[in-house]
Amino acid sequence: MNSLKDIGEFGLIERIRHKLRPGTSVVKGIGDDAAVIKFSGDKYLLLTCDMLVEDVHFSLTTATPYQIGHKALASSISDIASMGGLPKEALISLGISPGRSVGFTDQLFNGLRKLAAEFKISLVGGDITRSKKLVINICLTGRVKKKNLLLRSGARFNDAILVTGRLGGAGRGKHLRFRPRLKEARFLVNKFKINSMIDISDGLVQDLAQITRESNLGALIYQRDIPVSARSSLKSALEDGEDFELLFTMSKNEARRLLKNYPRIYTTPVKMIGQIIKQKEIFLIDKNGIRRKLGLKGWRHF
Amino acid sequence: MNSLKDIGEFGLIERIRHKLRPGTSVVKGIGDDAAVIKFSGDKYLLLTCDMLVEDVHFSLTTATPYQIGHKALASSISDIASMGGLPKEALISLGISPGRSVGFTDQLFNGLRKLAAEFKISLVGGDITRSKKLVINICLTGRVKKKNLLLRSGARFNDAILVTGRLGGAGRGKHLRFRPRLKEARFLVNKFKINSMIDISDGLVQDLAQITRESNLGALIYQRDIPVSARSSLKSALEDGEDFELLFTMSKNEARRLLKNYPRIYTTPVKMIGQIIKQKEIFLIDKNGIRRKLGLKGWRHF
Repeated sequence: MNSLKDIGEFGLIERIRHKLRPGTSVVKGIGDDAAVIKFSGDKYLLLTCDMLVEDVHFSLTTATPYQIGHKALASSISDIASMGGLPKEALISLGISPGRSVGFTDQLFNGLRKLAAEFKISLVGGDITRSKKLVINICLTGRVKKKNLLLRSGARFNDAILVTGRLGGAGRGKHLRFRPRLKEARFLVNKFKINSMIDISDGLVQDLAQITRESNLGALIYQRDIPVSARSSLKSALEDGEDFELLFTMSKNEARRLLKNYPRIYTTPVKMIGQIIKQKEIFLIDKNGIRRKLGLKGWRHF
Repeated sequence: MNSLKDIGEFGLIERIRHKLRPGTSVVKGIGDDAAVIKFSGDKYLLLTCDMLVEDVHFSLTTATPYQIGHKALASSISDIASMGGLPKEALISLGISPGRSVGFTDQLFNGLRKLAAEFKISLVGGDITRSKKLVINICLTGRVKKKNLLLRSGARFNDAILVTGRLGGAGRGKHLRFRPRLKEARFLVNKFKINSMIDISDGLVQDLAQITRESNLGALIYQRDIPVSARSSLKSALEDGEDFELLFTMSKNEARRLLKNYPRIYTTPVKMIGQIIKQKEIFLIDKNGIRRKLGLKGWRHF
């Protein structure tokens, strides 16, 4: 019998996904940053959840409880942002050792509450249980205007591929204090016609592959245009998980209009890094102009 | 500095709860079986989540993966039922060791899918991550007609206290295969005026105390009327967690009408076990007619 390591996270998800028969309330189930549910005449309900586990997503030797609370909620906000939506209500499940101090959970909830207040999110419930390793699960809802909904599957042939911020800095603690790109996503969705969007949680190449696979297309990116973080490397920029930047596609005309007027959205830089192609592969044009096929390396949960 | 053990689960929840400022979308935040959110003209959205941790809520030596999947979703369905609502969409977060077999997760998801299909719940998303101990978090949404919403805080002085099923069997495996009382709750809410309801997850006395505390009242229950499971004990019936029966209050007139016409709802027995009183304590009248004050013993997460 195969183990989960053999089929991988995506293999497992596909295995589950194809067996499901979603009900009539479901607009989009498994396979995007958040599920999309019928809500009102002009809006959808968004639902997403993220589980963080001690010594997998953070270590208590390098992260403070405040940072862990911040990261847990920030990851989910990033998912709602990349759907074009606004976050609204959060449920927090906490598995924690009874020997932890009250001060520890106070700090953890301070990290959560501060971010929740900033993004106008209501903490409405949750569950608390014993667990040797610290486990936090955030379930976050959002609302999105129907016309603003952004899916991974919306990319079109010849679209420009763009990215916010700089990539590859997650390993040096950025993943513990990053600010989800909600303002930037709201700006983009309100002022431009975006065709597809995802947040970079598993690495640029792997998340780009989610867009191309769901859109049934491929992509070509240029090494010279990839915004690599200071003191990081191309490899990190391509493969590191947890950058939590926005990766999106739009027509080249729209991209030109965006970059001409807004090379930065607020203070966040935006870069065009490539284009959508028909061939269902992901290619990198390196500094010498040589085209290289990229393997789907990136953060692997298994 | 105090540890969580010192302040307990409820102490921690209160500590978090009083610091929150819920937004305008929130009808009822922390403090009931599910959060209540504005949805449409005549309906609310319900949100609940439950985290199950290996060796706390189940053991892999006595529970099959199918039973674990079943239990995880059933606990959340029970929460939506006790609010008077219908379950709709579920998100599943799974922390699991990469060495587990594909067959193990297939069985776990079979347990989830079978129950989801029976209760017309759509599995719309989730998260999968590495974890040494198996952790499952279910986030379940529901819908409830505004007029059907049942809160813990609705109990009134002199209400009859009623319970479905038999209590105290959880320890012998019932908690792994129980059927959430959704049909029964729907029946009650559609045909009778129920004032308050909760599902028994932490033990009869402790969950009754949630109703009386939120309603600012007390309760008196009669030992002779408590439906103790076969081969169980009064102590188990009073204190064991995870019975997942419905505990509810209604006027005595309504209770008489219910019991006269429906001593069983479908095949589930219903018993009147006591009444709501003004004194903010919980009393048991024992077999000799002696009144005893009950301490809040029951399932403790810390």
